[in-house]
Amino acid sequence: MTDTEGLRPNERKVALEPAADATLRFIGTIETPWRDRADCPRQGRLDGPECRLVLDPVWHDALTGLEDYEMIEVLYWLDRSRRDLIRQSPKHDGRTFGTFALRSPVRPNPIGTSMVKLLRIENGTLHVRGLDCLDGTPLIDIKPERCAFSPKAAAKPGDSRD
Amino acid sequence: MTDTEGLRPNERKVALEPAADATLRFIGTIETPWRDRADCPRQGRLDGPECRLVLDPVWHDALTGLEDYEMIEVLYWLDRSRRDLIRQSPKHDGRTFGTFALRSPVRPNPIGTSMVKLLRIENGTLHVRGLDCLDGTPLIDIKPERCAFSPKAAAKPGDSRD
Repeated sequence: MTDTEGLRPNERKVALEPAADATLRFIGTIETPWRDRADCPRQGRLDGPECRLVLDPVWHDALTGLEDYEMIEVLYWLDRSRRDLIRQSPKHDGRTFGTFALRSPVRPNPIGTSMVKLLRIENGTLHVRGLDCLDGTPLIDIKPERCAFSPKAAAKPGDSRD
Repeated sequence: MTDTEGLRPNERKVALEPAADATLRFIGTIETPWRDRADCPRQGRLDGPECRLVLDPVWHDALTGLEDYEMIEVLYWLDRSRRDLIRQSPKHDGRTFGTFALRSPVRPNPIGTSMVKLLRIENGTLHVRGLDCLDGTPLIDIKPERCAFSPKAAAKPGDSRD
């Protein structure tokens, strides 16, 4: 049940000026089996279907060395999400949670993050498992997973000596 | 050693149009002990110094329920980073890695992600350990850590049945 503004019972929104603090550049597109939000799983699974991160050609050379990692972090832009909800009712039952206590795509900056398993890289396309986003979702970043990654630069004060 | 454009040996950059695919809204500011990039640790440690996520008042109510999580994910904007490097030489030794094979702040969309330990929330300020960013870094998102989070909505096809 939603009101005329698309709010569920007890959900709260805020009035905001247009976002204008920084700008993003999409670096590619994510291909998944899911064409509709109702089809997407709530959370990706490492044994889920194979998906593809199709990188724009200008960035292909920036993948050099990524093939050494089995797990990578993917950031993407949830381009169909509203951005003005403070409280949300995920079960439509009137019980609400603060937006930051949820991993809902509805948030002030709708950036999704996933840890995925890297299967292979072919011609600038990464084949992965573990995503849960819609087909066509814009890609914004790829990083080695932090647990697997050892900094390449020399240690600095404050770094672990382990 | 860097050239006049700030490149180290063998680093590669690309010429890019201004980024204009999506816009971000800063939701607060991060307070850390580090005022200079040379002082920041390479990676945050859960036993590192206490830092603060100071949320803009309009978002305070969006924290409701977050206090139930010990580990949270933080996204922030690395506002002093260049965005046009394809290959980087972290050790200044001429050996390069692709930007996406590094967790360097220099990337097409300079968004940092950290998993941090939530100590307490007081008046819209989160006290945490585990960050490694500069004092004054703009905050863009806070989410429960994915491992600790169980979706609040009903399961859908494709979700785990465990």
